[in-house]
Amino acid sequence: MNAVNFRAAIHISAICGLYLAAAMLFPALVDVYFGHRDWLVFALSSATVGFFSLLTAAATRAGPPPFNRKMGFLLVNALWLVFSLVGALPFMMSSLNMGFAKALFESVSAITTTGSTVIAGLDHAPPGILMWRSLLHWLGGIGIVALGLFVMPYLRVGGISFFKMESSDTNDKPFSRIASFTRAFVLIYVLITIACALTFAVLGMSQFDAINHAMATVATGGFSTHDASFGYFKSLPLLWAATFFMTVCSLPFSVLIVFMVRGRLNALRDPQIAVFLAYLAAFSTAIAIYHRLQNGVPFHAALAHSFFTVSTILSTTGFASEDYTLWGPFVVTMAFFMTFMGGCSGSTAGGIKAYRFIILFNLIRTGLYKLIYPDGIHTVRYGKMTVDPDLQRSVMLFFTTYLALWTTGSLTMAAMGYDVLTSTSSVITALSNVGPGIGPIVGPAGNFSTISDPALYLLSLMMLLGRLEVLTVLVVLTPRFWRS
Amino acid sequence: MNAVNFRAAIHISAICGLYLAAAMLFPALVDVYFGHRDWLVFALSSATVGFFSLLTAAATRAGPPPFNRKMGFLLVNALWLVFSLVGALPFMMSSLNMGFAKALFESVSAITTTGSTVIAGLDHAPPGILMWRSLLHWLGGIGIVALGLFVMPYLRVGGISFFKMESSDTNDKPFSRIASFTRAFVLIYVLITIACALTFAVLGMSQFDAINHAMATVATGGFSTHDASFGYFKSLPLLWAATFFMTVCSLPFSVLIVFMVRGRLNALRDPQIAVFLAYLAAFSTAIAIYHRLQNGVPFHAALAHSFFTVSTILSTTGFASEDYTLWGPFVVTMAFFMTFMGGCSGSTAGGIKAYRFIILFNLIRTGLYKLIYPDGIHTVRYGKMTVDPDLQRSVMLFFTTYLALWTTGSLTMAAMGYDVLTSTSSVITALSNVGPGIGPIVGPAGNFSTISDPALYLLSLMMLLGRLEVLTVLVVLTPRFWRS
Repeated sequence: MNAVNFRAAIHISAICGLYLAAAMLFPALVDVYFGHRDWLVFALSSATVGFFSLLTAAATRAGPPPFNRKMGFLLVNALWLVFSLVGALPFMMSSLNMGFAKALFESVSAITTTGSTVIAGLDHAPPGILMWRSLLHWLGGIGIVALGLFVMPYLRVGGISFFKMESSDTNDKPFSRIASFTRAFVLIYVLITIACALTFAVLGMSQFDAINHAMATVATGGFSTHDASFGYFKSLPLLWAATFFMTVCSLPFSVLIVFMVRGRLNALRDPQIAVFLAYLAAFSTAIAIYHRLQNGVPFHAALAHSFFTVSTILSTTGFASEDYTLWGPFVVTMAFFMTFMGGCSGSTAGGIKAYRFIILFNLIRTGLYKLIYPDGIHTVRYGKMTVDPDLQRSVMLFFTTYLALWTTGSLTMAAMGYDVLTSTSSVITALSNVGPGIGPIVGPAGNFSTISDPALYLLSLMMLLGRLEVLTVLVVLTPRFWRS
Repeated sequence: MNAVNFRAAIHISAICGLYLAAAMLFPALVDVYFGHRDWLVFALSSATVGFFSLLTAAATRAGPPPFNRKMGFLLVNALWLVFSLVGALPFMMSSLNMGFAKALFESVSAITTTGSTVIAGLDHAPPGILMWRSLLHWLGGIGIVALGLFVMPYLRVGGISFFKMESSDTNDKPFSRIASFTRAFVLIYVLITIACALTFAVLGMSQFDAINHAMATVATGGFSTHDASFGYFKSLPLLWAATFFMTVCSLPFSVLIVFMVRGRLNALRDPQIAVFLAYLAAFSTAIAIYHRLQNGVPFHAALAHSFFTVSTILSTTGFASEDYTLWGPFVVTMAFFMTFMGGCSGSTAGGIKAYRFIILFNLIRTGLYKLIYPDGIHTVRYGKMTVDPDLQRSVMLFFTTYLALWTTGSLTMAAMGYDVLTSTSSVITALSNVGPGIGPIVGPAGNFSTISDPALYLLSLMMLLGRLEVLTVLVVLTPRFWRS
């Protein structure tokens, strides 16, 4: 790691800081519109961040650096760290009087599209702050999809290079391709957000609520403008609408882009989509039946709530329509395990993700066959493609590291005094960027406002680790990374 | 799978049934000695099992079958199934009036050296039954070590072939080698049991308690003759003695055999031993310090209880000196995660086992290096040896399957109405052959007497799966296994 790389990483981060400074003017306008004096907070934050970003950017200006893998890892970490710190500023300065740990947690939770909140009393929070949370979600969603499409394949993290844009889209001008894809992606992201907001508004949300929830839905974030989350609206059609948009946004954006640009629907060619939709439907139906039998809820309501709940957890959004942990132990245990799972690769969803489960499942199957016929040829497949040993190792690496972090994080939470359910579920909900955990404190009816500062730092770290596919962060923490 | 194999598997199982019939005479004598009328139960069971075993053995007599892998898998499953069924007979017929599900669970728990019990009121249970439980533990311990030494390497299950007896011990007469190893192993197993029983007796246990607890300790089983388990004796020296013997019996028996036969102590050559002892010491010390600080217990007592508790969980024995779940959330969470871990390969301990964690850890390390230098050569090592890709895959296969079974089992328990802690911890304690779980029902202060019959069947299956290294059972359940 040399000084040139370091300077370049800081330079690019500073330029992104400028964009965030500009973004802060939006919640400022919202506060002005609603006549809340916190507009000043955003104006000041914007000026401060803008000033220092400009200064830093100017000081670190130089020719384009020699781009290499180390630079890539460093840059990704630097960007998310800068976003988190800059995003925390308005929370600290606002009338909510949050300390640094809480402000950082809220900002990381927003940027990583997790949606765990330390704010109790959202219904009366300043509108600018609510908008800032949604905006960070929304920008974080763009960031993560861009990362997955353009950077992660280059860094070969977690087997994700497998999902490079299909070969028919490659040509000899990679940058023009990236530019056109980026345009297409941002356009489709904006269009889905508008469609979602309009749908929410038509189905009864106020304009402000509709815009905020749409941004949180499309980014699979999960911040709400009400403590009761979607439960506030008491509307089954709204649950179905949210279910639809959360599900669409856990699909690979490349599929949506190809659909928009070329009019081809490639969805069924990618096995992860079929598998993801299959288990979403299966889990939802199972929970609906259980909810109907256990609690005597009318089946159509049970179905709406269970589809909403399953898709909000699997898409790693983390809204709540009710305290589903009261539906019975089966739902609690399902929620616990679903928090590990996640959506599709190439979307805004977090978690271990469907394609890794497909590969793991096929590893088990071929492994069993190999025990019966040790000399036979047993190929691990993903759809029609062969999964080479490097990709197998890469998936296992991710899976093992994920669980190791979960274990270490949970034990640390427990050492800080949290019970076993709160510890294990708060760490996995952070790592998978879901939002709520289980248990009375961090469950869907609770929030993170009573969690101690050291624990909030730990969970913030877990959210960042999970968001950046774990290994991207860990690599930078190895001593070997810093040797030249 | 042809009829010859099937017949041969039944024949060998029937012969083992004869041995169990003979073993039943031992608890019969114990009941006679203590003047309990249940001696008749064992005499009758013995006669019944003996009669039918003889009949079956005679009916299936034939020349030695062509031994192949399928036969191996079938035989191992058949043996453990027969042991479980035959072992259940005395429980059903005894004055305890257990139904089939409970009797089977108790028998499987004994044979697999798990030590979860459905009997509440052990202190007043018939002595013959208590002895039968210990005896099944003890025989199950012999069985699993023999399986690990001689059969599993041949079946190539779970990477265990890696720990074949060291090359210096191989010669061109494999059967004489097996015979001499078996003799050495049984001898050392008996000697350790006697040493353990004498130590327990000297430290204050009654003769009967000493013999029973010694058998349960050496087999890393965990059945006690008292509801309060080791807590009944209120003796720190006894805790230390048990800690010593449980730890020794979680080491690979091959190391003990080589030590006895050749006088060489190879313990430190095998990395799994060093790592296992290191984390045993680290966890125990951490818990002792926590226990001291949290509950103000004198440090020497905290140390004795924590070493005992950690070694009883890691060795997958499952005694209890106290309800350690009351020591605080850190200990509960530690107990939960330690239940996955297990001891060393080649011992009577269950769980995922230390050598797999070493390989997984090295996979993570080399995986991270590979991300930094994708073109470098990064060898996964186990001590000084290179872990070839086949073994890596094999470890991953085991690890993933283990967690998949845990998830599926836990969800099934939850669907039967058990809370998330009881569900997840009862399944992992069964799969790892530990004994107690966490939570009020199956925790160290509870037992499995209130668990419903369907749940007991599920947990019995999990114990057998775990005991036979998971894949051995799953292979037989694939349709491909039964195709000829």
